[in-house]
Amino acid sequence: MKFFVTGGAGFIGSSLVDRLLESGHDVVAYDDFSTGREEFLIKANKSPKFRLIKNTTLDLKALTEGMKDCHFVFHLAANADVRFGLDHPEKDLQQNTFATFNVLEAMRKNDIKKIAFSSTGSIYGEPEIFPTPENAPFPMQTSSYGASKLACEGLIEAYCEGFGFQAWIFRFVSILGERYTHGHVFDFYKNLIQDPNTLKVLGDGHQRKSYLYIQDCMDAMLIAVEKSRGKINIFNLGTEEHCEVDDSIRWISGHLGLKPRLVYTGGKRGWVGDSPFIFLDTQKIRSLGWKPKLSIREAVIKTLEYLTQNQWLLERKE
Amino acid sequence: MKFFVTGGAGFIGSSLVDRLLESGHDVVAYDDFSTGREEFLIKANKSPKFRLIKNTTLDLKALTEGMKDCHFVFHLAANADVRFGLDHPEKDLQQNTFATFNVLEAMRKNDIKKIAFSSTGSIYGEPEIFPTPENAPFPMQTSSYGASKLACEGLIEAYCEGFGFQAWIFRFVSILGERYTHGHVFDFYKNLIQDPNTLKVLGDGHQRKSYLYIQDCMDAMLIAVEKSRGKINIFNLGTEEHCEVDDSIRWISGHLGLKPRLVYTGGKRGWVGDSPFIFLDTQKIRSLGWKPKLSIREAVIKTLEYLTQNQWLLERKE
Repeated sequence: MKFFVTGGAGFIGSSLVDRLLESGHDVVAYDDFSTGREEFLIKANKSPKFRLIKNTTLDLKALTEGMKDCHFVFHLAANADVRFGLDHPEKDLQQNTFATFNVLEAMRKNDIKKIAFSSTGSIYGEPEIFPTPENAPFPMQTSSYGASKLACEGLIEAYCEGFGFQAWIFRFVSILGERYTHGHVFDFYKNLIQDPNTLKVLGDGHQRKSYLYIQDCMDAMLIAVEKSRGKINIFNLGTEEHCEVDDSIRWISGHLGLKPRLVYTGGKRGWVGDSPFIFLDTQKIRSLGWKPKLSIREAVIKTLEYLTQNQWLLERKE
Repeated sequence: MKFFVTGGAGFIGSSLVDRLLESGHDVVAYDDFSTGREEFLIKANKSPKFRLIKNTTLDLKALTEGMKDCHFVFHLAANADVRFGLDHPEKDLQQNTFATFNVLEAMRKNDIKKIAFSSTGSIYGEPEIFPTPENAPFPMQTSSYGASKLACEGLIEAYCEGFGFQAWIFRFVSILGERYTHGHVFDFYKNLIQDPNTLKVLGDGHQRKSYLYIQDCMDAMLIAVEKSRGKINIFNLGTEEHCEVDDSIRWISGHLGLKPRLVYTGGKRGWVGDSPFIFLDTQKIRSLGWKPKLSIREAVIKTLEYLTQNQWLLERKE
């Protein structure tokens, strides 16, 4: 099989590229390197079965040409910058919703019918049911990011009905592990390096969050695509636990041997659109035989170890 | 109050414009006349409180300038061409999703915080619960039109959370009555005028549909805006009944005194993305004291009478 992976130089995308190549597949990675990293593709670049296209998902022509002869698209490219959605709401619309439309159109032009998509648990907004199942009551959006991903899901589903596509939609919690480049562990680690004595925490520290280890996420996606053969296959991906921001801070500080003074900005939410409690029901993906190998705590530590060994990631990208 | 009505020259928009003017409000109608009609604004044009802007919702600058000094936006402009979504999927994305983003941005620039939006019962896809309540299980989209409207709802909700907007979102069934310009009554009437002996019917005639009379729709929207004061107010709008396509054909043929031979294209759906059963739970809007004055049958007859008296509408617009 020949796979096309948008966002193929990113945290999740490059991890998937490596896994697909290891399984003997051909892979075309497509990335605009806005957040992707050349370094993540060092291993992939050694494979004759790998090809990289540097371009944006806003370029329909390049997408269409790049997808030629591919059989399956993993659409992972996105503006994943959840927290700053209010600063530039058009970015989510363009880079998530419009980009997904382009990916679908490029597929249609190439007669490719199978797509896997990285959605988000954020589309549940602030749900009332925990753990939140895939068929939760019709959610209301609380962030530009969530709204843009919901729009992507709707578009993909409409293409399944209208053009005979088959889709796997994954609603992720936050992902941790090797090649992690942004999020709370990144921020806390970077801040503690700069000032080991004080740590600013957005919110009251009691926000309850869920995380999943990158390789567990890869296992889940690959198992779902292999075993689930409906027209539209939607899966929550996460662990069966959640933690408080304060738990994570304790693990991080403990691992680094630090005891910083914590300064809370206060409030139940870290920022506008932050969901105070994210905990997804993962029974559906578990019913396929999948379960995560790492706990949230282990994933946090793994991420810290990776960042410690890859301090170049802390530098702001040019 | 000064209202801004996008799609203000259309079937629903012009009806709203008249109602708002009758209540003594100032009204700015904004329409690109792709489906809007000058004739629908004859009455409005006589009012000194009325102003018309001919432009597209894709022009953010014109929208922003047009909204100046307005207090409340009714965003009704849309590509409502549900059946032909597959012929040009970018049309729904542009004219519904992207246009709604522009409306929200124009509001933000003018510091207008209140928006009412015409969504659709189509966003429930093919639901499993009837009548379908507003908090039905997370739906899957079956049409490009539904997907684009879902995206609009998500955007509006995100602006409520992020920018302090307040929204009234109306999920309509199909609307009938004076100024009706497209839909099954229109198609059947036009076809029967051309050939009174034969009528082609998309599907098997057993699709169950819901309809609402335009003035009942107006009453519901205006009552909801007046009485419902939450941050995000979502209402299904419809009657407590539904009918089969065959019922509607019987009413139409009977009213016209015709007995056409019916030729069914067959299948449970009239076209790809057609929902075989639309029936919305309207308890929420009824709890505000609203109820429809006309039955579906009466609304169909009212529509027929209107079309009979306005045959100019049957001509294709230049």
